[in-house]
Amino acid sequence: MKKKLIYITRKEHFNAAHKLYNPNWSAEENDAVFGKCANKNWHGHNFDLYVTIKGTPNEDTGFIMDLKKLRDVIQAEVIEQLDHKNINLDVPFMKGKMASIENLAVGIWEQLEPHIENGKLHSIRLWETHNNYVEYFGEENTEH
Amino acid sequence: MKKKLIYITRKEHFNAAHKLYNPNWSAEENDAVFGKCANKNWHGHNFDLYVTIKGTPNEDTGFIMDLKKLRDVIQAEVIEQLDHKNINLDVPFMKGKMASIENLAVGIWEQLEPHIENGKLHSIRLWETHNNYVEYFGEENTEH
Amino acid sequence: MKKKLIYITRKEHFNAAHKLYNPNWSAEENDAVFGKCANKNWHGHNFDLYVTIKGTPNEDTGFIMDLKKLRDVIQAEVIEQLDHKNINLDVPFMKGKMASIENLAVGIWEQLEPHIENGKLHSIRLWETHNNYVEYFGEENTEH
Amino acid sequence: MKKKLIYITRKEHFNAAHKLYNPNWSAEENDAVFGKCANKNWHGHNFDLYVTIKGTPNEDTGFIMDLKKLRDVIQAEVIEQLDHKNINLDVPFMKGKMASIENLAVGIWEQLEPHIENGKLHSIRLWETHNNYVEYFGEENTEH
Amino acid sequence: MKKKLIYITRKEHFNAAHKLYNPNWSAEENDAVFGKCANKNWHGHNFDLYVTIKGTPNEDTGFIMDLKKLRDVIQAEVIEQLDHKNINLDVPFMKGKMASIENLAVGIWEQLEPHIENGKLHSIRLWETHNNYVEYFGEENTEH
Amino acid sequence: MKKKLIYITRKEHFNAAHKLYNPNWSAEENDAVFGKCANKNWHGHNFDLYVTIKGTPNEDTGFIMDLKKLRDVIQAEVIEQLDHKNINLDVPFMKGKMASIENLAVGIWEQLEPHIENGKLHSIRLWETHNNYVEYFGEENTEH
Repeated sequence: MKKKLIYITRKEHFNAAHKLYNPNWSAEENDAVFGKCANKNWHGHNFDLYVTIKGTPNEDTGFIMDLKKLRDVIQAEVIEQLDHKNINLDVPFMKGKMASIENLAVGIWEQLEPHIENGKLHSIRLWETHNNYVEYFGEENTEH
Repeated sequence: MKKKLIYITRKEHFNAAHKLYNPNWSAEENDAVFGKCANKNWHGHNFDLYVTIKGTPNEDTGFIMDLKKLRDVIQAEVIEQLDHKNINLDVPFMKGKMASIENLAVGIWEQLEPHIENGKLHSIRLWETHNNYVEYFGEENTEH
Repeated sequence: MKKKLIYITRKEHFNAAHKLYNPNWSAEENDAVFGKCANKNWHGHNFDLYVTIKGTPNEDTGFIMDLKKLRDVIQAEVIEQLDHKNINLDVPFMKGKMASIENLAVGIWEQLEPHIENGKLHSIRLWETHNNYVEYFGEENTEH
Repeated sequence: MKKKLIYITRKEHFNAAHKLYNPNWSAEENDAVFGKCANKNWHGHNFDLYVTIKGTPNEDTGFIMDLKKLRDVIQAEVIEQLDHKNINLDVPFMKGKMASIENLAVGIWEQLEPHIENGKLHSIRLWETHNNYVEYFGEENTEH
Repeated sequence: MKKKLIYITRKEHFNAAHKLYNPNWSAEENDAVFGKCANKNWHGHNFDLYVTIKGTPNEDTGFIMDLKKLRDVIQAEVIEQLDHKNINLDVPFMKGKMASIENLAVGIWEQLEPHIENGKLHSIRLWETHNNYVEYFGEENTEH
Repeated sequence: MKKKLIYITRKEHFNAAHKLYNPNWSAEENDAVFGKCANKNWHGHNFDLYVTIKGTPNEDTGFIMDLKKLRDVIQAEVIEQLDHKNINLDVPFMKGKMASIENLAVGIWEQLEPHIENGKLHSIRLWETHNNYVEYFGEENTEH
């Protein structure tokens, strides 16, 4: 019998401060590119994080992965690092990177991937406001 | 002229009771694996179901499929079977399966597929709580 | 200086099973009044609970009440009793009452009130589905 | 080093009137196919539009594309044409087409595509009500 | 024993077209006051309607009022009149009034009030967009 | 004829950073009371602000107050001060106050009140996260 491929998603959230600025640029250049997102005293967001894994349900449990274990991994590897923190200053896995949600989504993928059974992590979706979100599927950009 | 491929999604919902337990296991084993989801007296959810079909709009109607007909199929084949029911006890197409949302999404696909024109059913997305949902695209798992 | 009156609301949620039926009535009477809500094998919901307290912020903390303490009270007195439970069978404070959300909102008020400083509990709002909710302000009905 | 492929989505909204009717058909045929959506005096919706672009973040900015510029393009090319308008009567890029959301999503793609750097536009998702939405990924339908 | 006062709310929705314009004014005056809301070819919205009733639950049913009956009244007296209609042209109870949501909320109250047991209708809340809504409690304005 | 009292609400939002700490206390005392909310490097939120005014619709316009003017007042007096700002450091009307949402809601009321016609401002509702919000109706606390 063919095994079916199912995707399951868990949502978590965290609240954090950040700013967008390039330390190699002047304040004026940062203002010109990042506008109010460059405010030197920071701003912040309620981030909603959706982690999707894929696989075939175990016959005994009906589970691809125990969602309680997935939640515990997300809490330990991501939420503990980010919740009520400053993304630019307090988060080891973001040191030296622009604190954009594009980079944050990749950082979250890299935090989670070693803790989830091989091949099962499918995507990270990260909402920054009601009006924008980023997705990362672990893909390489072969075109651009 | 090339024909464009469009996806259209209809949302429905139902309220149901279930529990997660494996009848081949002891109560202790069920508690250890499923925790409070194994409560013998059941618990329940408001389920949100999104059904996506794909195709090219008919030139006369602008429709891939009349959404009223899609709604009627979903109502007859899925909602009537599940709404205000016990998924473990009352639902013919879930008999003998673990009442997990992974299995429920596959069951819903199999209920709908014969009633939708060949090749048009694209995905089932089923929310169980604000914090988790399952997706099934009719795919076979060729890797895991 | 006049002290200002502020209202603060905390949201929690729980998933539970129930049915609507009157044990003094026949099955036919229950079906006639409660329809599919009387399904003998239960159904269930994701309940969203909003608890509002009122008062004047403490000058040192800016708090009417520490929301972490409010959350702990709601968890211990309400969520622990209701989450992943059967409201008709498993919940001591609902024994002998119709398991309607009207009665559930009153039961939740009575669970919380002794644990919140005198006069501060303002309202309970309880969503049962996307389409209906109940509110209770501790008021007596003097008219009807 | 491999370049990562990231997807970023911006949400905008507009309010518009429309009706579904085929001018080559009689009123009776229109009523039979489109039902209340064919009301001659129009009806309307709050439309939510999600535009997704893809690419690799610029190293200096962390951006695939400046979201402010994406917003300005969406405003100028789409929202200005549609907000508080009649889709059948007021919108140049919908002239001569059925005013279905399937066709509207394609029309929005074609409005945006020339203004977004080559290869970066990934998808249009357009919600018409709480219960239905359409997606278009610029794909050709090779099967149906 | 004191009887408790409970409030219960039912949500319904409808989609409609309208415009804001005063027939006693010139087109220029209408544009100056109502801006794009005065577009002569109409625009429209997905309206969310919340109807709240109050009372003491019946001891046999646990109900203030059977929500199915409340839903049927709302459907017959309000939704049938408004859904997929033009508020300015098609709705008898809005004839001769500005089609603002302020007036629409009052009109809906007056449609429902005779069909709900005396003293039980508490409020109408009507959302026009994600960003604005109106409430009416049947109150007289004694101050302004 | 009696004049009807109507309430209308406008929603706006802003993103800001803050922390909860009392400068008269040691770091240890702040940690004990405010926990992770006292993180010295700040955290932040997407704040949703609902401003409600009340009155009787003008006969010519159907408006209690032109919502575009209300929006402009909220933008100028509140959003410009708070959006992408640090509530503790950047906001003149919060200087010297604990940056709690209780105090922020009062501050927003006091910013708006002089700019809205006498007696018309009814309430401020401010969401800090999905799980908590504060309301202020301009009331004095006469009991506690």
